[in-house]
Amino acid sequence: MDTFRARIGGFAFGGDYNPEQWDRPVWDEDVALMRRAGVNLVTLGVFAWASLEPEPGRFTFAWMDEVMDLLHAGGISVDLATPTMAPPVWLTHGHPDVLPVMEDGETFGFGNRLHFDPASPRYREHAARITTALAERYSHHPALAMWHISNEYGPTSYGGHSAVAFRDWLRRRYGSLEALNDAWYTRFWSQRYTSWDQIDPPEVPRTWSNPTRRLDFKRFVSDANLACFRMERDIVRSYRDDIPVLTNYMRFYKHADYWTWAAEQDAVALDIYPDPGQDDAHVAAALNYDLMRSLRGEPWILMEQAAGGVSQWKVNNVKRPGRMRLGSYQALGHGADSVLYFQWRASRGGHERFHSAMLPHSGTRSRTWQEIEALGTELPRIAEAAGSGSHADIAVLFDWNAWWGLTETSGLPRNDFDYPRIATDHYRPLLEAHHAVDTVSFGSDLSRYKVVVVPNAYLVDDAFTDALTRFTENGGTLVCSFFSGVVDAHNHVRQPAYPGAFRALIGAYIDEYWPARPDETYLLTRADGTTAAADWWQDSIHPESARVLASYATGALRGRPAILENTVGRGRVVYIGTRLEATALRDTLLDAVAAAGVSPLLDHAPAHLEATRRTGEDAEFLFLLNHSDTETVRVPLTADGIDLVSGTKTDGAVELAPLAVAVVRSEPRRAAGGGRRVG
Amino acid sequence: MDTFRARIGGFAFGGDYNPEQWDRPVWDEDVALMRRAGVNLVTLGVFAWASLEPEPGRFTFAWMDEVMDLLHAGGISVDLATPTMAPPVWLTHGHPDVLPVMEDGETFGFGNRLHFDPASPRYREHAARITTALAERYSHHPALAMWHISNEYGPTSYGGHSAVAFRDWLRRRYGSLEALNDAWYTRFWSQRYTSWDQIDPPEVPRTWSNPTRRLDFKRFVSDANLACFRMERDIVRSYRDDIPVLTNYMRFYKHADYWTWAAEQDAVALDIYPDPGQDDAHVAAALNYDLMRSLRGEPWILMEQAAGGVSQWKVNNVKRPGRMRLGSYQALGHGADSVLYFQWRASRGGHERFHSAMLPHSGTRSRTWQEIEALGTELPRIAEAAGSGSHADIAVLFDWNAWWGLTETSGLPRNDFDYPRIATDHYRPLLEAHHAVDTVSFGSDLSRYKVVVVPNAYLVDDAFTDALTRFTENGGTLVCSFFSGVVDAHNHVRQPAYPGAFRALIGAYIDEYWPARPDETYLLTRADGTTAAADWWQDSIHPESARVLASYATGALRGRPAILENTVGRGRVVYIGTRLEATALRDTLLDAVAAAGVSPLLDHAPAHLEATRRTGEDAEFLFLLNHSDTETVRVPLTADGIDLVSGTKTDGAVELAPLAVAVVRSEPRRAAGGGRRVG
Amino acid sequence: MDTFRARIGGFAFGGDYNPEQWDRPVWDEDVALMRRAGVNLVTLGVFAWASLEPEPGRFTFAWMDEVMDLLHAGGISVDLATPTMAPPVWLTHGHPDVLPVMEDGETFGFGNRLHFDPASPRYREHAARITTALAERYSHHPALAMWHISNEYGPTSYGGHSAVAFRDWLRRRYGSLEALNDAWYTRFWSQRYTSWDQIDPPEVPRTWSNPTRRLDFKRFVSDANLACFRMERDIVRSYRDDIPVLTNYMRFYKHADYWTWAAEQDAVALDIYPDPGQDDAHVAAALNYDLMRSLRGEPWILMEQAAGGVSQWKVNNVKRPGRMRLGSYQALGHGADSVLYFQWRASRGGHERFHSAMLPHSGTRSRTWQEIEALGTELPRIAEAAGSGSHADIAVLFDWNAWWGLTETSGLPRNDFDYPRIATDHYRPLLEAHHAVDTVSFGSDLSRYKVVVVPNAYLVDDAFTDALTRFTENGGTLVCSFFSGVVDAHNHVRQPAYPGAFRALIGAYIDEYWPARPDETYLLTRADGTTAAADWWQDSIHPESARVLASYATGALRGRPAILENTVGRGRVVYIGTRLEATALRDTLLDAVAAAGVSPLLDHAPAHLEATRRTGEDAEFLFLLNHSDTETVRVPLTADGIDLVSGTKTDGAVELAPLAVAVVRSEPRRAAGGGRRVG
Repeated sequence: MDTFRARIGGFAFGGDYNPEQWDRPVWDEDVALMRRAGVNLVTLGVFAWASLEPEPGRFTFAWMDEVMDLLHAGGISVDLATPTMAPPVWLTHGHPDVLPVMEDGETFGFGNRLHFDPASPRYREHAARITTALAERYSHHPALAMWHISNEYGPTSYGGHSAVAFRDWLRRRYGSLEALNDAWYTRFWSQRYTSWDQIDPPEVPRTWSNPTRRLDFKRFVSDANLACFRMERDIVRSYRDDIPVLTNYMRFYKHADYWTWAAEQDAVALDIYPDPGQDDAHVAAALNYDLMRSLRGEPWILMEQAAGGVSQWKVNNVKRPGRMRLGSYQALGHGADSVLYFQWRASRGGHERFHSAMLPHSGTRSRTWQEIEALGTELPRIAEAAGSGSHADIAVLFDWNAWWGLTETSGLPRNDFDYPRIATDHYRPLLEAHHAVDTVSFGSDLSRYKVVVVPNAYLVDDAFTDALTRFTENGGTLVCSFFSGVVDAHNHVRQPAYPGAFRALIGAYIDEYWPARPDETYLLTRADGTTAAADWWQDSIHPESARVLASYATGALRGRPAILENTVGRGRVVYIGTRLEATALRDTLLDAVAAAGVSPLLDHAPAHLEATRRTGEDAEFLFLLNHSDTETVRVPLTADGIDLVSGTKTDGAVELAPLAVAVVRSEPRRAAGGGRRVG
Repeated sequence: MDTFRARIGGFAFGGDYNPEQWDRPVWDEDVALMRRAGVNLVTLGVFAWASLEPEPGRFTFAWMDEVMDLLHAGGISVDLATPTMAPPVWLTHGHPDVLPVMEDGETFGFGNRLHFDPASPRYREHAARITTALAERYSHHPALAMWHISNEYGPTSYGGHSAVAFRDWLRRRYGSLEALNDAWYTRFWSQRYTSWDQIDPPEVPRTWSNPTRRLDFKRFVSDANLACFRMERDIVRSYRDDIPVLTNYMRFYKHADYWTWAAEQDAVALDIYPDPGQDDAHVAAALNYDLMRSLRGEPWILMEQAAGGVSQWKVNNVKRPGRMRLGSYQALGHGADSVLYFQWRASRGGHERFHSAMLPHSGTRSRTWQEIEALGTELPRIAEAAGSGSHADIAVLFDWNAWWGLTETSGLPRNDFDYPRIATDHYRPLLEAHHAVDTVSFGSDLSRYKVVVVPNAYLVDDAFTDALTRFTENGGTLVCSFFSGVVDAHNHVRQPAYPGAFRALIGAYIDEYWPARPDETYLLTRADGTTAAADWWQDSIHPESARVLASYATGALRGRPAILENTVGRGRVVYIGTRLEATALRDTLLDAVAAAGVSPLLDHAPAHLEATRRTGEDAEFLFLLNHSDTETVRVPLTADGIDLVSGTKTDGAVELAPLAVAVVRSEPRRAAGGGRRVG
Repeated sequence: MDTFRARIGGFAFGGDYNPEQWDRPVWDEDVALMRRAGVNLVTLGVFAWASLEPEPGRFTFAWMDEVMDLLHAGGISVDLATPTMAPPVWLTHGHPDVLPVMEDGETFGFGNRLHFDPASPRYREHAARITTALAERYSHHPALAMWHISNEYGPTSYGGHSAVAFRDWLRRRYGSLEALNDAWYTRFWSQRYTSWDQIDPPEVPRTWSNPTRRLDFKRFVSDANLACFRMERDIVRSYRDDIPVLTNYMRFYKHADYWTWAAEQDAVALDIYPDPGQDDAHVAAALNYDLMRSLRGEPWILMEQAAGGVSQWKVNNVKRPGRMRLGSYQALGHGADSVLYFQWRASRGGHERFHSAMLPHSGTRSRTWQEIEALGTELPRIAEAAGSGSHADIAVLFDWNAWWGLTETSGLPRNDFDYPRIATDHYRPLLEAHHAVDTVSFGSDLSRYKVVVVPNAYLVDDAFTDALTRFTENGGTLVCSFFSGVVDAHNHVRQPAYPGAFRALIGAYIDEYWPARPDETYLLTRADGTTAAADWWQDSIHPESARVLASYATGALRGRPAILENTVGRGRVVYIGTRLEATALRDTLLDAVAAAGVSPLLDHAPAHLEATRRTGEDAEFLFLLNHSDTETVRVPLTADGIDLVSGTKTDGAVELAPLAVAVVRSEPRRAAGGGRRVG
């Protein structure tokens, strides 16, 4: 990414550019307007397979040559996409086995997007050919700044190619049928396999089905897509290895384990469309941004956002005035090194004709264009923040195996867990209290943190259990909520008592899990006499070494413990055995964080004032965002600084009007603290 | 239709007669009871294919000969149906390709109705054979009064025959693949076709799909069914051309463009089952009736209604005492020349065994029979009104391309438009204010009207835009509501600004479409200080030549215009940029209508008193219906007249008891005004 | 069953035992803990096909030999299952035609349970082979006490094997196509069949379909599964005929007509999982228990219940302390001779890993184990009640043909009837008033009863009509609710008036059925001036010989009759023409019961105190259960007795703490009354 960062200079600004939708004269206008708006990077060719290879093996690169040259002449760099997310009709019509088979047995036909089976050999063969042709032609084009491999990977097929690939994957994972039968617990329901070819992808579960089979299929699908990415990556790298290669992820996307993916690419990139119709969509967005930054521990690429409304939902709200700018700075504050959009110019037809664009149907007269142009003009003011790092003392677990275990395997005491929502519920109070937060996976190094938050981690592997144990023994604080540690990576209940892996950590065993009856709520009493509300779930807890922080004051478990604390080595574990109401969860989390000696970035600021800090080699950048559209906020600052956006010095405080933004540059507070300069 | 009208004499009264369900002795009782009830027309043979052709090519007409003779002897005319809506099992079992393939790829099997692919050559071959045999045998039977081609056309198949026929249809529409690719905007998402045989019917949209492909498929399905109709029509006409040939339509039916269909048949006919469980079902019914009348600008046939409850819904309410009579007169008031039912005698078995009949399971002792007999006895009193015409100064757009554009193509700013409901919302205040209303399509002659109402016409073709322009330039008033004029017939956004086709008409451009956030409402202020409520949608309007009639007093667009008026030539355009609450929409519409100099049929009558007027050569017939079941209404009348139903002279007024009906005959108010005698 | 009862001695206690899930050392612990808990019967091998026959024809009985011997050595009897509900993958993978085809045409794949087409010849062949092998090996094993044929029969297939078998079944039922065409009313909608091979199973009804075809298919599916049961039963009986052979039923299970099934097996057995999340789940449970007892008129086997929560629902609540014991005694009070569970030891993996077990994941330290152990220890105290009979003067119709007619055939005036709920609504007031209740079918002997309750019996056959007539003529009281007697067994409306079969019984005809409009309710006035509420439905009643007990005071049928009484011979009929609100239905039922001279088991006890009586040869056992978890109940008793549970003499009364149970033994009140000693 070094070359790329050097080339771009500050933050990348631009979007998906699809010139094949427009006649030649429009291209000149496009480049002129891009320059006017400060665009320095466009993504080219995402949907261009049919335009580049109109029939098998015949390539028509002339138009793209011209576009690349035009852009280069305009000083605009290119993120060149392999177009393999949208195979042309000549491929799917000639070879229907390229198409994915859905869970219900039907084939997903041509006419949408992502209509390929990632395990199809023929798909991979054709994808390799067009990728090779592109790499051969453009690897050394002076406009080329980045490779964008395909798009939003995740296609899933339940058909024959997937069956073959799934069996291979299982053979590699388990080695023997015996081991697979053990892992899948096939001794139950007479499901023992006696030959590899008896194993099929799971079909739509009409009643109930083997939960480990489903779990492994999710793992396989992520890997099958990753294999496609790696194939294309290796092709383009074989032509030139100093251009960063990546693909773009999605918001809370269940079908690909991005921790595994991130290690395979040169940078992390995200497409995200927070719903402007939801008042607090920025909270989940922030978690996604922190996740993206944490995946590789470095700045990331905001690859797609919308300039306004989208076209994929039943109701597609606009981004109201000022919101697009605010959301863009939010991503930057959480570590993004770019502000990119889908797409540059609004389409006249096709499914996404009402998806907003940098240049809308109403052209430069439009409010959206004016906000885009203003932002493009403004961003260079904070260019020095690009590439800067960050530091957090708190980490929240966000792991795909934990997700899949909780939501994809069925047969739980209750089966309506919503993992992204659970993670967001635990993250929100930390964000709103102005704490810096990383996310971690089972495999992460926890030693960098003072507090680790583990929400509803039903499935955990042994390595994570060991890591948590070391973390707490070494003085860390673990906050863990109910129904955690229950099963191993095979989805087998850990014996001899719940919560299996975490029994020693929490200092208690749990006899039973009590999902709430309809509309049931509980009142809790804390040691200090205060009360708290909860609902949805109760662990029936029997403390062993733990102390009780709160007990049930009502209900069938009245008098029994609800929240525990336990000492493990030099560390501390807070265990929450129920679903706390929001303020109670906030208090519990913030008490634990405070007790662990973690300070927020700001004190006394309201929850709607968001604060994040990026740290460069010789400066810190405090991003301050006022999410309220009615309240002005005054933020006292201890260090002297300058607000790069307004260009004014901070005189002990910054005042932010509704929806306003400030990026306060100051000297680093710590010598060689958490932040690091990347690239 | 002349011969038919002459033969029937007044209004046709009767229903579907399915004697093949009953033993021979029942037939005599049927004819006797029909005579007792005043039946003069029955529809025969709709479900009789298996009874007429028990094996391929072997016909058993003897029973039908006998029924035809019996009916003729009883003085009852026959509307003879071709039985092709319900192919026998020997056809579908021997040739499963006759069956339609559903959107999800499954075949729609035997055992229902309408189980045929209209594009199946084998279906058409067998349909032609039975039609030919019927025509040959009965064309000159003295009972024959009308041909009823098949039934409720609309079957849709996504299978192989449809693929072939769809490609042929597209080839005829577009001429070249190049033109199709342009129209379908296949430059997006890599969807370019390079050969006709790559094009398939759209499958169930699992994510999103090409919106113009879906739009064209709706057009194709309508035409494919129409081709079936035309084939059978031509066969029966080849035997004798003085018998009217028609098929029956359905209420708000999305799958056939009845404007196109109406031109191909000798009269329009409607099957309608307003839900007796809904208090205002008569409003949507009235719109359907006006639509039927407008399709050919002449009286139409009410082909099927229910004597009481139906059997197709989850809960099937009865028609309470007096409601069936009231609803029958309503259809007549809106131009129907018949009162016909499905069906004559209630079936003992089969799916529709609880669908009500003229002769119910409980026979002549039943309330329903008694109401039927009373109505059949009463109708001759108004016989002279049969065949009379009508006149309206107001037209509401109801066009299938507008419908499909708004609801079948996806990817809109919001995707929960309900076209029939939208049309009904705009129609209701006009009906309740006692205005006569026609409906129009894109291709209609608008010069006959003073006011044209265009609700949410997202997709409009160029010809309609031109017609609206000429209409307003010539002094007409156009009332148009939000999100209109946006795309062309290919579903391409009209550039360079919204609302594309209508920008000059409304005198403003629209920058963005703002669907409402959940539960969001707006308050509007009019120039005179009054206020109005709205919700669901806001156009972000920038007036050019328009004046502002109302502005937003709340919300993010506070102070911005909500309702405009614009002068175009000698005409006026009122543009409504939001979804007005019902009374505000009513006031806006009625103000515009009044300003255009259109008077209602009645002043000062309550909304539940419905008034319609039919105009004959030398008399006018004012139909007055009291929809209230508790309130008596006194209607002052200016002209002298006689209530044909009661036989009493109107003495300056008519008083209508709850659920009462009057048909007031008077001298025509105008010399050779709007009304015309048909036939 | 005599041998079995003699062997077990008192009540059977135990559950499903799946040792194939566990390593050898666990087996010893299992037997030791079983002995500690008082287990005397386990069901072995339900899921063991793959473990017993790992490849076609190769059997591995060694492990089962060992388990059988171990259990026998521990004094525990075995209910040996044929494992045919879960075919191994080698069977389904080698022969996919063994798998059932679902209603939508998709195949139900391997990986669930019950994945077989009962009409598959290959399935039957393999099922016969493993059954034969088991019978040959274990018929004379000393541990063998009972044969458990397969499990929860009910698989349904719409594929080719079912088509062939369905045609055979229809040929046997109807004899000729002519008769089938008449029964199916194929003269409607052109559905006449001209060859048997044209008939297929009904597909998913995309619009509407032939209701008698659907009805017959339900009948066929029940019989097709029964044929599988009979085949296996005959095999095991051919080896030894003194071991009882049965299969296990399910709660309110629509897919098998258990009246037909019960006659084919040696005892009735039930699997039941009342939802602990529902406060009144014990009412429907009681009805199921009475149904089980009535099927053969003798004690039955509670084959599966849960020790705590299950895993099949979205939210699986636990059984709170004391509830499992209470529910177990409830089953015994209603005639069960066993308390058995699924399963003995909680699985570590697989779909049901969180289904509770006698020995939970948390082992003997768990609350559940402690309650199991206590119950197992307590049950021998009431051993003498095992095998005892019962007597009831009241019977409620619960018939599968009535069920299927009302809910599976579509096209009714309303189509949201819930038969189990309707039956429960009529049963609840009788249970809560401490009446003993049997259930009856169309074919039952009614002469044993004083009152028969017939809820919403839309479809009734002629034999039942005759039986009801004889019953009332002989002095019985019939209480019948609306929409009864309407159609015959072919689903044909009985002419010439509603309610067809029941017109003479109720002394009235019904002109029309009026489903309620949305939210409509009615007020009724009784002769004594009191009022009652109703909703949902009104029969439009015309009394002939009947007297009016209550009339509508509101609504369109104001003044018309709602509840009738009629005298038939020496008997009385009460007819309820609407859906009464719960207290009104209770009063109407209890009035009729009292007028018929039927006394409850208890007077003045609250509804939450449940009372049932079992009658042995020389003692009566009054089961008293306090379902309240807060109220203590004192029950006065007239006869002297002893509470077998506590071992204390009743001194004119028994006092029951919340959730408490008493089983009061006393001398029989009647000489040779209703009760009988079975076996």
